[in-house]
Amino acid sequence: MPMTMKIPEQIKLLKRGTVEIFTEAELTEKLTSAAKEKRQLRIKLGLDPTSPDIHLGHTVVLRKMRQFQDLGHKAVLIIGDYTARIGDPSGQNSTRPMLSAEEIEQNARTYFEQAGKILDTSDDKLEVRYNSEWLSKLDLADLIRLTSNMTVARMLERDTFELRHKAGDPIGIHEFLYPLMQGYDSVMINSDVELGGTDQTFNNLVGRDLQRIHNQHPQVVITMPILVGLDGKEKMSKSKNNYIGVTDEPNDMFGKIMSISDDMMENYFTLLTDFTQEEISEFVGTGWHPKEAKITLADASVSTYYDKATAKAAAAHFDKVFAQKQLPDEIPEFTTANKPISAKQLLLTCKLVETGGEAKRMVQQDAVSIDGNKISDPNIEINPKSGMVIQVGKRKFAKIKVK
Amino acid sequence: MPMTMKIPEQIKLLKRGTVEIFTEAELTEKLTSAAKEKRQLRIKLGLDPTSPDIHLGHTVVLRKMRQFQDLGHKAVLIIGDYTARIGDPSGQNSTRPMLSAEEIEQNARTYFEQAGKILDTSDDKLEVRYNSEWLSKLDLADLIRLTSNMTVARMLERDTFELRHKAGDPIGIHEFLYPLMQGYDSVMINSDVELGGTDQTFNNLVGRDLQRIHNQHPQVVITMPILVGLDGKEKMSKSKNNYIGVTDEPNDMFGKIMSISDDMMENYFTLLTDFTQEEISEFVGTGWHPKEAKITLADASVSTYYDKATAKAAAAHFDKVFAQKQLPDEIPEFTTANKPISAKQLLLTCKLVETGGEAKRMVQQDAVSIDGNKISDPNIEINPKSGMVIQVGKRKFAKIKVK
Repeated sequence: MPMTMKIPEQIKLLKRGTVEIFTEAELTEKLTSAAKEKRQLRIKLGLDPTSPDIHLGHTVVLRKMRQFQDLGHKAVLIIGDYTARIGDPSGQNSTRPMLSAEEIEQNARTYFEQAGKILDTSDDKLEVRYNSEWLSKLDLADLIRLTSNMTVARMLERDTFELRHKAGDPIGIHEFLYPLMQGYDSVMINSDVELGGTDQTFNNLVGRDLQRIHNQHPQVVITMPILVGLDGKEKMSKSKNNYIGVTDEPNDMFGKIMSISDDMMENYFTLLTDFTQEEISEFVGTGWHPKEAKITLADASVSTYYDKATAKAAAAHFDKVFAQKQLPDEIPEFTTANKPISAKQLLLTCKLVETGGEAKRMVQQDAVSIDGNKISDPNIEINPKSGMVIQVGKRKFAKIKVK
Repeated sequence: MPMTMKIPEQIKLLKRGTVEIFTEAELTEKLTSAAKEKRQLRIKLGLDPTSPDIHLGHTVVLRKMRQFQDLGHKAVLIIGDYTARIGDPSGQNSTRPMLSAEEIEQNARTYFEQAGKILDTSDDKLEVRYNSEWLSKLDLADLIRLTSNMTVARMLERDTFELRHKAGDPIGIHEFLYPLMQGYDSVMINSDVELGGTDQTFNNLVGRDLQRIHNQHPQVVITMPILVGLDGKEKMSKSKNNYIGVTDEPNDMFGKIMSISDDMMENYFTLLTDFTQEEISEFVGTGWHPKEAKITLADASVSTYYDKATAKAAAAHFDKVFAQKQLPDEIPEFTTANKPISAKQLLLTCKLVETGGEAKRMVQQDAVSIDGNKISDPNIEINPKSGMVIQVGKRKFAKIKVK
């Protein structure tokens, strides 16, 4: 996208998919003055280094960041290593485990490898900072000054705190410090804009408050929707196993997208692709073809994280295995002795299951077939033959070779 | 008081005048084990170095401390220099001005000079610590650990916070840090007992919590009543001008005590003297003589802060000036020209008032007399004569000399 795009067009682009902008007027003003002064805006995004793997839920914000980069601005990624090194001392928040410096470094590296598929990683477009750089230097006097800028009532307005407080659930006082620390990050890097999911709205607005107190122009806060996972209900997350990872195998990524429900399509198109609103309206509007739309979305996604050719192959694979219920082109082959073997043992030998218990479960769920015939007893004796094809679920196949 | 006093007797002595003890059982246990191990208990008292002058309100807790010293234990005075150096950054608490290290040092010196009239200042009975010693070393990670030990709900239970929160008055988050810092002081000096007024109950109980978390025996918290001032209504304090300072002139101290209302006498006897409960019952019990009781209390107070002889002289002075309405022995003399002068100007010349406004007010309040005759108009012309006596209120006198 060219830097010569007019401001109203830039605003239209940047607004696409957002939930709220605090405030659009300030964003317009910042874009205008940056263009006039030939200055890059500093777009902040905070990263939690406890979970390095990026899934499509994370890409919603990263894609917005990429738009800013394409308009000429600088992504400033803040790695929250300071708190990650402390963890949650009250032990109540399992999402804040204590990490060593090495683990943080490793996680950050993994993160950047994956985020590099979306962000522009050239030096003039990306700055990476670890917040221990400034947080480790704060002493008690600094902390007292910092905390004096925020009231208890204001903090309790935060929706999660308010709910917990009303429910009588304990809130550690240290939890009040985290939003202030994130806000302090904004001061230290002098950010112009902060991006985040709607669950970060409060924290990011604290940054505005602290910047004002430190005589900086308050950052514009842009919030993006939380992407719903494959189940169509909960936030996409690794722990819920309802996610599509950016490093998922192409066939998996393609297949997972094909599995989502029709009513999620418009949302996914908006948040995960560059299609214009007009194009999306065609894909999912009146008289649309859900399967065609999903193929378009799956193709776009695999093309983004791999390439066009891989996307095309994944589409063909999907078509063959799922749509036409044919066998895939390549099936891993396993060798077994020429003597009867239980179905359970055969599944283990072919690495189609990890435990005997899983084998039993899959059989009971009617998910196992041999040469197209369903198996109903995990202990049934099979006489192995070379070329015999064993299938578990929709996507796992193995071929037998008798020695 | 001998160390050989039996524990139940010690408890009886230490309970005298207290409001609450958290807990008496623990105090008994600590006194018992200390006696057995020939070990001193460490009795903590926190001092605010912003107001060095001690009045009788402060002595209530200091006298309790002296009892512990007389039983063989060690007073550990904590000078809160760290927060005094910061002040209240939100600027809302005028009782927390920012002080320089020199001011703190000077205030502490003044404080100890005055407290030395009550405390045993020998080395084995007194330890003085500045809390910057440990608070200046805390970093953010320490703070997060410290604050994780306390919940927001627990903090809001504190009566002053609760009232302010319900009233919608802003509470700065830094205010939540102060009780934790005071509690951390207890951990750092490993205190056995903390003394304080009832307004410190919450803060001192936080010390118990933090000591428990740091695997120390929690301190016993003993709270003393807040002494009511001369007005019989509000807490004794310098800002309310209802106080008796320990450095007040003997005649002032004596006169101020004679001026308090009868119903305050039992309280003052209990909190400001060593008289036993039996003796006090005689002074203020059925058929008591309020004036006699006040003289006993005034005599005891002046004897404590000066000596017996000075107390006797103050009693005689009081008797002469107030009781017999006679003139005091020595009256300051001022020279004026031999020509008519307004009453207002005469009061100014004799330094009996500081401003013309004050002169006018005193006359209007019927508080000014010349040679025993009340003046009703501040502008009345007086013909000065040598030896003329001018009186303002009950205690201020001046004599005229015409040149």
